[in-house]
Amino acid sequence: MAKELKDLTKSDDNYSRWYNELVVKAGLAETSAVRGCMVIKPYGYAIWEKMHDVLDKMFKETGHQNAYFPLFIPKSFFSKEAHHVEGFAKECAVVTHYRLKNDPHGNGIVVDPDAKLEEELIVRPTSETIIWNTYKNWIQSYRDLPILCNQWANVVRWEMRTRLFLRTAEFLWQEGHTAHATREEAIAEAEKMINVYRDFAENWMSLPVIVGHKSPNERFAGAEDTLTIEALMQDGKALQSGTSHFLGQNFAKAFDVQFVNKEGKRDYVWATSWGVSTRLMGALIMAHSDNNGLVLPPKLAPIQVVMVPIYKTEEQLKAIVERFEAIAAQLKAKGISVKIDDRDNVRPGFKFSEYELKGVPVRLAMGGRDMENNTVELVRRDTLEKETVSQEGLVELVEKLMTDIQQNIFKKAYDYRQSMITKVDTWEEFKRVLDEKGGFISAHWDGTVETEVAIKDATKATIRCIPFDVEEEEGKCIFTGKPSHRRVLFARSY
Amino acid sequence: MAKELKDLTKSDDNYSRWYNELVVKAGLAETSAVRGCMVIKPYGYAIWEKMHDVLDKMFKETGHQNAYFPLFIPKSFFSKEAHHVEGFAKECAVVTHYRLKNDPHGNGIVVDPDAKLEEELIVRPTSETIIWNTYKNWIQSYRDLPILCNQWANVVRWEMRTRLFLRTAEFLWQEGHTAHATREEAIAEAEKMINVYRDFAENWMSLPVIVGHKSPNERFAGAEDTLTIEALMQDGKALQSGTSHFLGQNFAKAFDVQFVNKEGKRDYVWATSWGVSTRLMGALIMAHSDNNGLVLPPKLAPIQVVMVPIYKTEEQLKAIVERFEAIAAQLKAKGISVKIDDRDNVRPGFKFSEYELKGVPVRLAMGGRDMENNTVELVRRDTLEKETVSQEGLVELVEKLMTDIQQNIFKKAYDYRQSMITKVDTWEEFKRVLDEKGGFISAHWDGTVETEVAIKDATKATIRCIPFDVEEEEGKCIFTGKPSHRRVLFARSY
Repeated sequence: MAKELKDLTKSDDNYSRWYNELVVKAGLAETSAVRGCMVIKPYGYAIWEKMHDVLDKMFKETGHQNAYFPLFIPKSFFSKEAHHVEGFAKECAVVTHYRLKNDPHGNGIVVDPDAKLEEELIVRPTSETIIWNTYKNWIQSYRDLPILCNQWANVVRWEMRTRLFLRTAEFLWQEGHTAHATREEAIAEAEKMINVYRDFAENWMSLPVIVGHKSPNERFAGAEDTLTIEALMQDGKALQSGTSHFLGQNFAKAFDVQFVNKEGKRDYVWATSWGVSTRLMGALIMAHSDNNGLVLPPKLAPIQVVMVPIYKTEEQLKAIVERFEAIAAQLKAKGISVKIDDRDNVRPGFKFSEYELKGVPVRLAMGGRDMENNTVELVRRDTLEKETVSQEGLVELVEKLMTDIQQNIFKKAYDYRQSMITKVDTWEEFKRVLDEKGGFISAHWDGTVETEVAIKDATKATIRCIPFDVEEEEGKCIFTGKPSHRRVLFARSY
Repeated sequence: MAKELKDLTKSDDNYSRWYNELVVKAGLAETSAVRGCMVIKPYGYAIWEKMHDVLDKMFKETGHQNAYFPLFIPKSFFSKEAHHVEGFAKECAVVTHYRLKNDPHGNGIVVDPDAKLEEELIVRPTSETIIWNTYKNWIQSYRDLPILCNQWANVVRWEMRTRLFLRTAEFLWQEGHTAHATREEAIAEAEKMINVYRDFAENWMSLPVIVGHKSPNERFAGAEDTLTIEALMQDGKALQSGTSHFLGQNFAKAFDVQFVNKEGKRDYVWATSWGVSTRLMGALIMAHSDNNGLVLPPKLAPIQVVMVPIYKTEEQLKAIVERFEAIAAQLKAKGISVKIDDRDNVRPGFKFSEYELKGVPVRLAMGGRDMENNTVELVRRDTLEKETVSQEGLVELVEKLMTDIQQNIFKKAYDYRQSMITKVDTWEEFKRVLDEKGGFISAHWDGTVETEVAIKDATKATIRCIPFDVEEEEGKCIFTGKPSHRRVLFARSY
């Protein structure tokens, strides 16, 4: 591990390689034998589980219920919503057969050609179509509305270039799908859920995000409006971290989902959908980590405090571990998770490196002198500050550190993000800032898809969002010079 | 709903139809547009979530961690373990292509023939192969062992005849996959986990189960020993509710997973796997429910207490709901989940039927006279006993009922199960009991696969298990007359 850590590429040298190595070395995930699919290892999955549990609670507190819909979608369903089929990527896993058989020539197994499906099934890339086909049978009257369902599921998009957590062929996510009697209620739902995501990102992941509307070209295929939370990574690239879509009546019309409203008239149902995925793991890693490894916000850290005994004799080890156990019991009573690492086959320095790599927020080390002095060596992961503190009041100190570290890494990410929003008023400056500084560029845009696409083609920068809190301001589009009424945020992105 | 309930087929008239109707009418699940795949509706999913949460806690308390492995398995992996490929059903969903495209003739979308996979991918029917292919890279030395991983996942087996929860093409499950340094440790793990399942079935689902070994013909393909929990449904058929496999070194050899043991010698790793699925939902429903609907054990009921106001005026409704809210707050403080149903568009009788159908353990109704007398009408779902009780001490009474009902439905199922184990010593009696009474038949068997298969062909009865607690007893095989040293349990099964 110490060797492995030494081998970790420096983030300044090659950010992309640093990220990939960190994900693997910290035991979060690895590539699998199946192209583009990852194995989420126990330590990585433990973080995802915490994300799952917190989000799930937030969804339930906002009135949602979980359900589960099929993995497969009949191919014909994709053609039913015109924008959906046009805009959605066609890279999907297609099931064509339903049986294997022993190779008649004795070479293992082969696909049975007699077992061809009449209609191919698509492994869900997202579930609007199958869910709205189901909702048709659930909704007759306004009394059946709203339907506020969420599902936790795996989805597959056959990406050509994949990266662990950020872009994988299979990934885990949640997708909320709601049905409403009015346009206003659906819009309010979409806004409510993007704010749930903002709350989660900022207060649990310590990840500052900008909330806004997607521009038409970046909208979800089939949506009338897409809301997004956009985060900034340490290399100056943006990462879309969650989206919430107002779908209008598009899917209701495609699947003929009508209801009788309070006035006794038939109308199509209004829809939203919203989701976050294991991509959040990528955001978490890239927002806070450093050349020593992960930096995890305490609220999502599987291990919040690690204790390492420094000993010369078996007897001393036993005494130190006993002292640690007493402290650990008090910490656990306060809901703080603790690991005592009493392994005897690796040295303390190795353990220090390992837990830095894994981003454990607080490390306590205790040796013979500490035992005598009733002290402990405390290192916080976010600043790597080391101090020797008294065992008296240690529990309260660690409890306070959980909050301090959570806030400190948010503040650090926030200050960085704020320093990386640059107002730009000319095309030359736009290109220069993009290449030399990166981050978000706040600039005027004429509001057309043509300009958006032309800017993307020229620079690889896209409109990340039109922020909720943008101020009206007259100006000229940096690309066409045409009039504009507000600035939007551009960036290169993951 | 009242009408729907009236339409519920009586279980005596047609048990199979009763089951299907109940699953749908109680809002647990329904068939989907995809053949054999089900939609798990919010009320059904809420029960599954409770199962998930309890089991997950039990797994973690026994030292396991969650991880996530790919949905897809390369076809060639299935050929690597000889017994696995021989014995495992070949009905699998096969992915052959990775892209769709717009039909050049304008008829929606078609599969892109240029996007054919070099090697077909199988949607996992179970994950031993992909996981052991992964473990190969995780294990070098005995210090890397044991690996105690579990995953919660969806799996697909292309069943020809499907039934909601009991047998569906896609289902949800957990699969534990552990790796050990010694044979003894792996066997102990397999036993530990079947006992976790037993604990869960009996103490959470109120489902008595018989724990034992599968006979060779019923073993998991690739296992040296399969342990099982077998439950009895109300129609006298057995239902395999969970299995735990000792896999020997079979998968380690197939995927070349070796380690250096404490003595410095290389050896193959020992394995177990174990799983339960949404099939448990079927077991839960069939073990306890009646002609009025579901009967849920309080520990797994999404709503434990429902409160129904009986009112004449708006004012009275308000007063009753206020009183209910005060009681509900006290119940919630004790961890009991409560729903107050103040809908004004359906009558109390309709609500009563609905919550009986949904199996809510305790129903409280309050009317004007109850308000005056400080009483409430209480109905427990398991016995349908109705009594008027004082509001004084109501919270304690309901709390006690949660335990009483949990135990009572276990006892009822246990007594029934015990009454349905019949000792049989002749072939004629075997066939007669099977046809006229059903249930488990305790009989001698000569220990050969040939006899097992012959009995199955003749009667559709299989050996459900060789119980852990079976007593040694000399006798003669009911089919061949050959000597036998213990009885085994036969039954027809789901």
